[in-house]
Formats: sequence, structure tokens, C-alpha cells
Amino acid sequence: MENFVFCSPTEFVFGKGQERETGRCIRKYGGTNVLVLYGGGSAVRSGLLDRIRGSLKEAGISWQEIGGVQPNPIDTKVYEGIELCRAQGIDFILAVGGGSVIDTAKAIAAGVPYDGDFWDFYCGKAEIQAALPVGTVLTIAAAGSEGSGDSVITKTDGMLKRGAGSPLLRARFSVMNPELTQTLPAYQTACGATDIMAHVFERYFTNTPEVEVTDRLCEAVLLTMVKETPRAIAEPENYDARANIMWAGMVAHNNIVGVGRQQDWNSHGLEHELSALYQVAHGAGLAVIMPAWMEYVMPHNPMRFAQMATRVFGCQMNFAQPEETAKAGIRAFRRFLHGIGMPISFSELGAEEADIPKLVGKLGIPEGKKRAGFMELSAEDAANIYRIAAHAVLE
Amino acid sequence: MENFVFCSPTEFVFGKGQERETGRCIRKYGGTNVLVLYGGGSAVRSGLLDRIRGSLKEAGISWQEIGGVQPNPIDTKVYEGIELCRAQGIDFILAVGGGSVIDTAKAIAAGVPYDGDFWDFYCGKAEIQAALPVGTVLTIAAAGSEGSGDSVITKTDGMLKRGAGSPLLRARFSVMNPELTQTLPAYQTACGATDIMAHVFERYFTNTPEVEVTDRLCEAVLLTMVKETPRAIAEPENYDARANIMWAGMVAHNNIVGVGRQQDWNSHGLEHELSALYQVAHGAGLAVIMPAWMEYVMPHNPMRFAQMATRVFGCQMNFAQPEETAKAGIRAFRRFLHGIGMPISFSELGAEEADIPKLVGKLGIPEGKKRAGFMELSAEDAANIYRIAAHAVLE
Repeated sequence: MENFVFCSPTEFVFGKGQERETGRCIRKYGGTNVLVLYGGGSAVRSGLLDRIRGSLKEAGISWQEIGGVQPNPIDTKVYEGIELCRAQGIDFILAVGGGSVIDTAKAIAAGVPYDGDFWDFYCGKAEIQAALPVGTVLTIAAAGSEGSGDSVITKTDGMLKRGAGSPLLRARFSVMNPELTQTLPAYQTACGATDIMAHVFERYFTNTPEVEVTDRLCEAVLLTMVKETPRAIAEPENYDARANIMWAGMVAHNNIVGVGRQQDWNSHGLEHELSALYQVAHGAGLAVIMPAWMEYVMPHNPMRFAQMATRVFGCQMNFAQPEETAKAGIRAFRRFLHGIGMPISFSELGAEEADIPKLVGKLGIPEGKKRAGFMELSAEDAANIYRIAAHAVLE
Repeated sequence: MENFVFCSPTEFVFGKGQERETGRCIRKYGGTNVLVLYGGGSAVRSGLLDRIRGSLKEAGISWQEIGGVQPNPIDTKVYEGIELCRAQGIDFILAVGGGSVIDTAKAIAAGVPYDGDFWDFYCGKAEIQAALPVGTVLTIAAAGSEGSGDSVITKTDGMLKRGAGSPLLRARFSVMNPELTQTLPAYQTACGATDIMAHVFERYFTNTPEVEVTDRLCEAVLLTMVKETPRAIAEPENYDARANIMWAGMVAHNNIVGVGRQQDWNSHGLEHELSALYQVAHGAGLAVIMPAWMEYVMPHNPMRFAQMATRVFGCQMNFAQPEETAKAGIRAFRRFLHGIGMPISFSELGAEEADIPKLVGKLGIPEGKKRAGFMELSAEDAANIYRIAAHAVLE
């Protein structure tokens, strides 16, 4: 196990009706003049935004609103938010939505006290030194941004999707009411579940030996998702299925399952180019990329894939040919994804094999260099993975 | 799943040599004049205390020291600490040791700003409203106090062992260096491991349905302990076994594996009377009590015990007679405890069956009332569990 520092200070206020606590929570963490950020109309139509406004009013908090944050959130909304915060003396940002809204809120939070362009944090030119406090009211279990210190934003100029991270970006509080996810369509539910599982797999496939406790914690989240996701899709109003998924989504990404080990994140890297180019849902892109990545890198450590196959998907271990078990696990994962309605190939996703050179180009892996990870990837490796994804079929 | 609030803000600084960070951490959390609290001589003999003094000096921090905190820590040390803190204007308490030292530090931290007797918090007469900040340098994986908001202290007058809890008692930081546990004798290692497993079982056995994600997280910790404990005992200097156990001990008790569910804690309650009366190690007492409690309450929900048996101890499920699987799991747990050198009966522990009425009396369950828990326990139930523990044998 490697040395690490872990600190997840967010207060999670979880359960039925907890959005009523929003105003009280903002007060507790010092907010008086708030930017309320939200996405499409569902927070409006469902009455959630009205309930939150009521809670703010009750707590004597003033606020401004910005709506219309889109999936795969873009920089223009961040600039709009930074400007408003500065003009209005905003001292707290409340994100009402999923990962896109929360990631935008974090980008605004980091941008407000910064003299330069907030994009500096996302392109690696600067480190975040200060940020406004952020709170969240989560409406979809997926990105895990409610518990993480990460944010992913797309720069419209060139459609570059990049991430930034800092302990300063962790939310002060996150209200997590699984009821708010009961109206999610099956497709969005499945995309969210895929993202959650991907967050675990990105940590699970490691070259660090002797990390039994985090291996087992990873498997705990994966087993939960394998059980609860089909149930939430078959019975959208099943509160307990929704609740287990929502909490699993936080556990998957606040890094409690990832400490002390090298992590991968190449599937996310490869997927980001897909969703930036085609504007597909991040989870759907991951459903296509992640099993393809697994097939390609499996020979690097078949026993780790056999462990996943037996412990998560209940495959029988083939002790004579562990690679067969490894392959069975990957097949089981792809069947699981197909079963919850996810695309598994480029054509199902709406991506084009002819674009692979463009996708690889955007990854920006220099000639003769490789991306770090479970298996280091050259540009050619990335192209091979995209090609497997292009042609994937159910077995 | 039930509604809950979860907040574990402690910064965990984990790994080799991390005690060098102690001074920097105290500075970060505002400490300038520190009480350093420690237990027996091992922190002195090992040179740990000297390294910490060096780290404090380097950070420009002044400090006072109190040593000699004993296992099953007592109130007199708390009073001594409170007095010193007030006299010296202490603004931060650093616990160097295990649960006893950390729990004493927490009691002092709560007592300093309180006008009355700190014991008010432990006997339920008052709630903690303020506390000095606490940091820890952990030297044994066991109590989980480095990540919890709990503290257990014994009042010497009457040998009453009682607990207090508050979010204010969570450490600001905990330095966790597994190397510091490599010199622990096998018996203490096993006592710690038993305590860790008990912290999980107290949460695992619940009447709350539909808590798959926390069930799986509980099982993750238990599986880790089943694998790593015998290894740490056979190879005391195995860093990775020690590291997995140390992190598992924190995860077991910061409540990430216990949210959203009713918890039990009756085994701890029954054990506290044992260790208060006989001054036995808490973990050893739990090794005797916990399987006895399991046998007695198993009929309340055999399927939950069958789940433990199959998922944690790898028992084959007897679908025709699930109670047989449940029993096999309890037998496997007791064999595991015996295998790591723990006592499994009163006589092995040094307890007397004749004292059972006294033990039950101290529990203070009023006539006609029951203690809440997985199965509610009357005084007679408690006596029955102690009797099973008195006569337990290996099967």
C-alpha cells in the first residue's frame, strides 16, 4: 500500500425530504448571499427549486439564480457565473442538479477569487489556491461530484474536455434525497450507474500490490450496483434501490475506495473525447469504452481481471486458464451494461469509426510517449481500444 | 434505508514515516500550545515520542506532556488533563497511542471548556457543546477512535465504563503509520483485530432492511480482517498486512459502514462490564461475548447470520436449513478468534461465572425493561448471553 492523505470533510445530509435542510446548511457554513445554479427544467417542473427557494427564504438567505447548465458542461456558463458572483458579492454557491451543475459550480467557485482565466486550472497552468464554498442538492446518482474534489468542464473553443481537482473544491455539504431520482428515465439511470461503476474500476485496476481493504471496498460498491441498478430500472420508484445507488455513487468517488494505490483513469480520458465530439452522455460513452479498454489491457494482469470476474460477477474461477475467467468477467460486464440499456459499440452510441484518428489526436499523446495508468497507453494503443469499442458485440 | 447525516472531516495522513508531519498538521489546524498525551513506555522506548517532539519543535509549537494513560482509561487522568490544559492555556490536544489515549484526549478536550464535571457527558446528563481540537498519532489498530466521534472512559468510583459521542470529538487529523504497529505483540494485535471486527458486526446486525451498500461495505472490512489478521500475527513485520488492518480499523468505525441503519452495540455494552470488572483487554472480552451474543440472538433473523456465514466466512449455504448455515458462520467466527489467540470462554478470559449477577446488575437494565438493539435484551437475556460465554467451547 502506498502512503496517502485522505480527507472527505463534506457533510452528507441523506434521505427523504432532506432538501428542506438546504437553507439551514448554507447558514451553518457561512453563506448569506447565494448563487443557485441549476440545469434544465426538471428541477423547476418537479417543484424542487421552489422547495429550495422556500428553505433559503426561511433561513433569511438572499440569492441569485442561473439555470440552463447543460450536460457535458461548458466554459461559457462558468464565465457567466464568475461575473455574476463578482457583481453581486456572492459568498456561497449552491448547485442543484447532477455532476454537470456541481462541476460548473466548482469551476465558478475557483474562478471567482482568481485573477486569471479559470481555464488555467483545467489546462494545468495553475493550481487552485482559494475557492468560494459550495453546497449541493443532488438530483442524479452518477458523477460522484457531490463527494469529490474534482470538476470536469468542456472548453467550447476546440471542444476540449478537461478536469481540475483540489481539496478546496469539496462541497461543504451535499443534500442527497433518493426520492429526487425516482423520476429519472431508465436511460439516465443506467448512464449514471455506468459512471459510478467506472469510477470504481478506474481505481480497482492498479499495479499497487497488497491493497486488500480497498479492493474489497471497491467490490462492495460494484456488487451493490450489480444488484440495485436493474431493480431501479425495472421499478423506478423503488426508494431503497435508488437510495443504495445514490450512496454507492458517493462512496465510489470521494476516494475512500481509491486510497493507497495507483489509479488508472484512461477509460475516462478516452471517453471524454467521445462525449466532447458527439455530445453523448458520459455514462453511455463509458459503457462503450470501458469493456473495450478491459479487453485490451487484460493481458497486463489477467489475475486482477479474474478477481473481478469471480468476486463481482460470480464467475467460476478457471484455475487452469485464469485468462478465461478474466474474459468471462469482461463479457459479464458488457452483458450487464447491455441489460440495463447501455450502448456497447460505436454504432449504438452514434460514433464513427472513421473519427478514431481525430479522437486519438485530441488525446494529445506525443509521438513516442505513453499515458500513465494500469497499462501505459501510446496513441496506437488508444486507437486499438477505440477500434475494439467500434466493433464490440455481445457474447 | 433510514435518513442519516454523515460527516467524517478528519484528515488521515497515512503511511510510512508520516509522524514527521505531526507538527505541520497541528499548525494547519491552529494549535500553538499543545498537550501531548501518551500511554505506557513503548512510545518513549521506540523513539516515537522523540520524533514527535522534534516535529513540534520544528513547527515552532510549545507543549506539555502527560504520560501513563492506561488501557480501559479512567477519569482521574481526564481530570489531571483538564486541570493542566486550563492552567497552561492549552489550545490543542495531541494523543499519541491507541484508543485509550485518544479517548482520554477527547474527554479532556470536551471537559476543558465545560463548567461542570466532564462525566456529565458520559452519564447522559449533558451534551457536548464545545471541545478543544484533537489530533492523533495512532500506534495500534483497534478502537477506531482516530476516525470516530466517540470516547469511552471508566469512572473509578464504581468502575463504570461509559461512552460519549459528538461530532465535536472527531480528530482534526490522524497520523496513521502502520510501521508503528509492527512491534505489537501477537496478543495485542489480535485484541485490536477483534475490536475492529466487532465494530463492524455491531452495525451489520440490524433490523433495517434494504441496506445493501452498507452490508457490502461491512463485509469488505470483515473479509479484509479475516485475510490480514492471521498474516500480521504470523509475520509481525509485514507492512502491508499491518497497513490493511490499520485502514480497515478506521473504516470500521468512522461510521461509513453504519449509516442509514439501526445499529446494535449490545456486545460492546456487555463487554464493557467484563473489562471494567476484570481489567481484561476490551478485544479479548469481545472475543468471548460476541459469538455468545450471536448464538443467543441468531433465531431473531437466521438469514442475516447465513448471509454473514456465506459472504464473510465462505460457508456453503444450506438452502433447506438456513439456520445450519447461520450456526456454521458463528462457529467459523469463534474458530477464527481462537486461531488468532483470543480467549473464547470465561475461564480463558479469567472471568467467573459466579459474577454474572454482578455483571448483569451493572448493566442496569430495569425490571420489565429491555435494552434496544438487533434483539432487545432483558436482564435475563443478558444473563443468558453471559452464561453461553462462560461455557463456550470450540466446535
